[in-house]
Amino acid sequence: MAVFTHVSAEEVAAFLCRYSVGELIALKGIAEGVQNSNFFVETTQGKFFLTLYEERVDITALPYFHSLLAHLHNAGCKVPRFIDDNDGNWLQQLAGRPACLIEFLSGVSATTPTAQQAYSVGDTLAQLHNAVEDFDGIRPNEMGADSWQSMAEKCGVDGLNSISPMLAKRVFDELDFLSVNWPRHLKSSAVHADLFPDNVLLLGNDVSGLIDFYFACTDLVAYDLAVTHAAWSFSSDGGTYLPQIGTAIVNGYTARRDLSDAIEVMPILFRGASMRFLLSRCYDWINTPANAFVTRKDPLAFLKRLDFYSKIDNPRDFLGL
Amino acid sequence: MAVFTHVSAEEVAAFLCRYSVGELIALKGIAEGVQNSNFFVETTQGKFFLTLYEERVDITALPYFHSLLAHLHNAGCKVPRFIDDNDGNWLQQLAGRPACLIEFLSGVSATTPTAQQAYSVGDTLAQLHNAVEDFDGIRPNEMGADSWQSMAEKCGVDGLNSISPMLAKRVFDELDFLSVNWPRHLKSSAVHADLFPDNVLLLGNDVSGLIDFYFACTDLVAYDLAVTHAAWSFSSDGGTYLPQIGTAIVNGYTARRDLSDAIEVMPILFRGASMRFLLSRCYDWINTPANAFVTRKDPLAFLKRLDFYSKIDNPRDFLGL
Repeated sequence: MAVFTHVSAEEVAAFLCRYSVGELIALKGIAEGVQNSNFFVETTQGKFFLTLYEERVDITALPYFHSLLAHLHNAGCKVPRFIDDNDGNWLQQLAGRPACLIEFLSGVSATTPTAQQAYSVGDTLAQLHNAVEDFDGIRPNEMGADSWQSMAEKCGVDGLNSISPMLAKRVFDELDFLSVNWPRHLKSSAVHADLFPDNVLLLGNDVSGLIDFYFACTDLVAYDLAVTHAAWSFSSDGGTYLPQIGTAIVNGYTARRDLSDAIEVMPILFRGASMRFLLSRCYDWINTPANAFVTRKDPLAFLKRLDFYSKIDNPRDFLGL
Repeated sequence: MAVFTHVSAEEVAAFLCRYSVGELIALKGIAEGVQNSNFFVETTQGKFFLTLYEERVDITALPYFHSLLAHLHNAGCKVPRFIDDNDGNWLQQLAGRPACLIEFLSGVSATTPTAQQAYSVGDTLAQLHNAVEDFDGIRPNEMGADSWQSMAEKCGVDGLNSISPMLAKRVFDELDFLSVNWPRHLKSSAVHADLFPDNVLLLGNDVSGLIDFYFACTDLVAYDLAVTHAAWSFSSDGGTYLPQIGTAIVNGYTARRDLSDAIEVMPILFRGASMRFLLSRCYDWINTPANAFVTRKDPLAFLKRLDFYSKIDNPRDFLGL
């Protein structure tokens, strides 16, 4: 939860004068986001998010996110646009921070998604992947497969084993497997790379918006489906696979987009997706004091997913294809 | 800033089924409030606040706040109503907490108010005081004049002097003065008792809402004006009186409501208002670790106000009456 930088209503009202969005009528700091300060802004003409990028954010990547979201919006995807000011600028300064005014999309995030919602998520992800086929922006994935060995080394053997006995051996053995077997030949494009339930807005059973593209990057298209599958298809402790959810995501996806090139290697991509979040959560766990205000997420919820995905015998059967 | 208790969209959607307010289309935790968890809720029919009362809140006082706000609303005052569910209940349970759905009012809080805004605040406060003349609810002021001696004793001589050398003597001498001179004979009624700029919503120069009635209580009517004057009419460090603001508040108030009974004792009420916030801030300062997440407010900003108000020679001249 976060509002790191405070802005006054007077500052925001003056900021909005650069835009053609009407006059400020409501301003509320939002308790979400761990790297940005986010405000709900209502004007006489609509609702918006005002995001102030804090120091930890790499603002050199903002033009990539901007052009990706503009491309997706123009292709009919339900994503929030950056709003241009009257001079065509979408990146501003406010309260000493880089700041953007962003479209506010209706919808709420599911905590216990239904199969129908999961189907819509798969469908919407396929729509996104179809839409970026002619998007030429490039951004390396800083959390991608090539980074995992060094992330694990930063956690360290002792660090990993402090989370769970023998975790280090499990991680480094798995990394050996993944480095040999990672399907680098698969098609790459822009991907969301973090499509957890928090980042999907729903109205009833239908996706109304995909949000939080700040991990978006260039990576294997099918890896994005693997991340989404891993993020949605388990109980919150990672210990129970929810087959009706996982199957619905894949069915929603394949109804709109061909997955045949990737089916046989999906287990490896699932294992990679589990490794990526296992490692980032381990790193955060080791480097966040237990009494810090930020809630630490349990790394082992992704070790359990890794264990589960490692046991897939028949990818086609598992995926229901 | 605060969301202490998390609720899922599914829980809120089910909660809203008790009401005739349409279906949930947006839910955002709000980074404000230090005793409650607050959520912005949008439905197909309107915007609301969902408030969950945390353990520190005395929920036995909620019926008083409810009836006061209903009374004020019926009298035409701009205050947020508690929304009744389909069975006429306004107090619910959600996520194990007492919970209420509350009207969302448009408007933003001023950080550097204009004289026109201050006039509207005085006018709106007088409107509130007129409206409660026939309100018969009673709630003792737990932070009222009778509580200050014990608040000061809880801070202790060492505690007070740790904030500023000689502060304890200044406080206890002032408390002796106030206990002898407090104008207990003045008219009492329901008062807001905490009408800081944060608790006033404005659209342009006009008040669009008074909010956060959780300190509302029965106390001297003119004391409420004194609190408001002290809250609005100084630079943020308390060191500079802003006469155009203070005068505008009084002018706005007296244009709608007679103050003649209280004019001569307003300096004492101003000193009491300064003492009330000096003491509560001293208590919080002494009892909040410097590295806690909650920002501690500077007690001395109210010592400066106390010093300023203690030098008023001619109340009528000072008030511009």
